[in-house]
Amino acid sequence: MPEAFSFERRVGFAETDAAGLVHFSNFFRYMEEAEAALFRAIDWPLFTSEQGVIAGFPKRAAECDYRRPLYFDDVFTIEVALRKLRASALTWQFTFRRGPDVCAYGQYTTIYARRDAASEGIAPALVPDALRERLERYCTEEPADAQK
Amino acid sequence: MPEAFSFERRVGFAETDAAGLVHFSNFFRYMEEAEAALFRAIDWPLFTSEQGVIAGFPKRAAECDYRRPLYFDDVFTIEVALRKLRASALTWQFTFRRGPDVCAYGQYTTIYARRDAASEGIAPALVPDALRERLERYCTEEPADAQK
Amino acid sequence: MPEAFSFERRVGFAETDAAGLVHFSNFFRYMEEAEAALFRAIDWPLFTSEQGVIAGFPKRAAECDYRRPLYFDDVFTIEVALRKLRASALTWQFTFRRGPDVCAYGQYTTIYARRDAASEGIAPALVPDALRERLERYCTEEPADAQK
Amino acid sequence: MPEAFSFERRVGFAETDAAGLVHFSNFFRYMEEAEAALFRAIDWPLFTSEQGVIAGFPKRAAECDYRRPLYFDDVFTIEVALRKLRASALTWQFTFRRGPDVCAYGQYTTIYARRDAASEGIAPALVPDALRERLERYCTEEPADAQK
Repeated sequence: MPEAFSFERRVGFAETDAAGLVHFSNFFRYMEEAEAALFRAIDWPLFTSEQGVIAGFPKRAAECDYRRPLYFDDVFTIEVALRKLRASALTWQFTFRRGPDVCAYGQYTTIYARRDAASEGIAPALVPDALRERLERYCTEEPADAQK
Repeated sequence: MPEAFSFERRVGFAETDAAGLVHFSNFFRYMEEAEAALFRAIDWPLFTSEQGVIAGFPKRAAECDYRRPLYFDDVFTIEVALRKLRASALTWQFTFRRGPDVCAYGQYTTIYARRDAASEGIAPALVPDALRERLERYCTEEPADAQK
Repeated sequence: MPEAFSFERRVGFAETDAAGLVHFSNFFRYMEEAEAALFRAIDWPLFTSEQGVIAGFPKRAAECDYRRPLYFDDVFTIEVALRKLRASALTWQFTFRRGPDVCAYGQYTTIYARRDAASEGIAPALVPDALRERLERYCTEEPADAQK
Repeated sequence: MPEAFSFERRVGFAETDAAGLVHFSNFFRYMEEAEAALFRAIDWPLFTSEQGVIAGFPKRAAECDYRRPLYFDDVFTIEVALRKLRASALTWQFTFRRGPDVCAYGQYTTIYARRDAASEGIAPALVPDALRERLERYCTEEPADAQK
């Protein structure tokens, strides 16, 4: 039974738009804040940059289904689940709730990646074992599926 | 043969993040800027707010596949296509290119919606015929599919 | 002796830029979040929009002095003080600290303003007495100065 | 007689807030876009990051006076002037106009700074002569004042 992780947030005024709602792009920023909170909980940095060496989790794909708008000053929670944990790819799922109502379902896939000071590009890397062990408790994937 | 619509943009510094790339959430803002440019081209307001009456196109779902990063000061184009034009829903597709390289594929579905001054909520509405006529030239959907 | 108000925040990844620091524009968003937190503490809405009637505090002027950068995941506090409380104008001061270090000093002046559904423009209004009473405890201004 | 530099921009929907106006923080992003446009005009990179070496212009102080709101889809221009050009500090002034109306006056001071791959911090550096020569034509400061 995977462990649940939940993140609470309040809507800032700058995150709304002239329609009076949270701008749709900000749901993706909220997802990333929830992901960052989970990484803090497992004591692993979501992003590091030291002496020109960068390590992080750029996104390969992202999506969101919007069910109910969020408004300024609304308090909402994001439930985070790790749907897939592969060699270097992680797929995260996010459920946005305001009280009992689901406001949105989000998902994105990240690639663990590193860049050395000597190289310009960012290259995918294997998720370190120490990180994999800490992440497994949040993983909702059935072991059988993981083999496919 | 649907008409092509293309939008050019340059990456601003505030749109980058500490990994040195455009933050993934900003691709969604770029899509909306391209959509707004197309609405200007057909002389229809993407959003209006007059005397408490709001009309616009909130998103029902949005997604993006990231292929290559964009960096500060990069010039890129977004090719816009209207994949579906339904009673009140529109599905837009966006192809991001920097020179010959595809950097991302995006898509979102909007709902034409209105809010009166007297009501608090936003309600879906039928796409006005005058707007539908102007949009059809960008629609890539086969007429047969549109009936399904 | 005015009451102190403090707000704690953590830097999100989307708030950084390619130089690896929090983008300077985001300090202004942080100030507004701190202001919103203070308004919640006094149980007064910083912004309302009901049936086309908007009430809020648009900015007349804003400034920030940057002393030390903030980085991704940094925890910082903002100390808020109300420097001036006039007929319809409020001047807020903000001190950003990360641990013992001051990272920035900010300030902005807002105008209490309302817009009716029937009118397009936003017009300054008198700060309501009930709000004034709740704000006074945070006001650092000397009564004598307030007469000037 | 210093050379004028002007930058044109259109308000994006994501830049507005629930009050229906451009969020005050975005005026600072617009200023930076205008600064970046000027740097392109003189063929000097506003920001570079190569092999861990970063060079750019972090802000030391920034301010804005707001005179008239900007709304979604408004076209405005920013007139840019270089008020001070010192050893490593530059002070830029920005005038926002929509048609004949001034919407805002902005200003910020930047510090030319570099960071090596080997060091963590960013250190002020002298403005290179080649850059200084290209910037002088935009400088509105009287030579006599520059000595003070």
